[in-house]
Amino acid sequence: MVILGIDPGIAIVGWGALRYENGRFTPVGFGSIQTAAGLKVEERLRQIHVGMTEIIEKYKPDVMSVEELFWNTNQKTGIVVAEARGVILLSAHEAGVPIFEYTPLQVKQAIVGYGRAEKKQVIAMVTSLLGLKKPPKPDDTADAIALAICHGHTAASPLSNFYK
Amino acid sequence: MVILGIDPGIAIVGWGALRYENGRFTPVGFGSIQTAAGLKVEERLRQIHVGMTEIIEKYKPDVMSVEELFWNTNQKTGIVVAEARGVILLSAHEAGVPIFEYTPLQVKQAIVGYGRAEKKQVIAMVTSLLGLKKPPKPDDTADAIALAICHGHTAASPLSNFYK
Repeated sequence: MVILGIDPGIAIVGWGALRYENGRFTPVGFGSIQTAAGLKVEERLRQIHVGMTEIIEKYKPDVMSVEELFWNTNQKTGIVVAEARGVILLSAHEAGVPIFEYTPLQVKQAIVGYGRAEKKQVIAMVTSLLGLKKPPKPDDTADAIALAICHGHTAASPLSNFYK
Repeated sequence: MVILGIDPGIAIVGWGALRYENGRFTPVGFGSIQTAAGLKVEERLRQIHVGMTEIIEKYKPDVMSVEELFWNTNQKTGIVVAEARGVILLSAHEAGVPIFEYTPLQVKQAIVGYGRAEKKQVIAMVTSLLGLKKPPKPDDTADAIALAICHGHTAASPLSNFYK
């Protein structure tokens, strides 16, 4: 099974495609879609749609694991990130890829075993679990990979009925 | 010039296409895209994308006038409405339609001449300006038409440089 993890954003969409077999994760590809701050929002959304569609065509994920959004203190950022997330959900659904959502708490719990873990602990675990020589950059890419791992662990749990 | 007004939403996207010539508005078509509450968000977003694309192909608007989003007290609703709005902006931009945004205050000011006007006053003015026998339904459609009128008035203003 190939899991595509996505960390939504308007400036940076982190993504990570992992193969998950026999309880092991192997990176297939990871990176980020980046859009320039000077562009209009609608053009940035278009670039995200095109980028997402290309990634899905290339890696043919069986599922997408995407971060659930919560309001942060910067409401203006919040709206445009949600707009980007809408386009990301659309891209996956257009390609027939089922979507699962996880909160940052669930991701930290799944990766570090502790919901209040620090970001750097999550990145260190991601780097170690995938046997990478250095942490994936930018952090959004590491977060996306963490989302993919979170889905693998959750789906593989005996309490899960995702793949029964 | 054909102006497409849009009132964004996840359950109901109101739309209204008006021809604006010599200071007069003529309705070309109006209605709403409605998605069922029981569907997954990604499927509702897909239906909005398909619906928007069809409306744009049919009415070939020169511009789209869309409501600017603000957080309301229901944050969960806010996120999903912003996701829908992202898909709406994408649909217009994919078709090469320029996008203009207005706040509810600007719309009320443009239609009723008073930023704190009540919703029913806006709907009554929309109905009267277009010479309709009864108010467009649902209210989201009337709001969308108000957005189109707001853009027409604003663009025609001597202070505007939209169409110089």
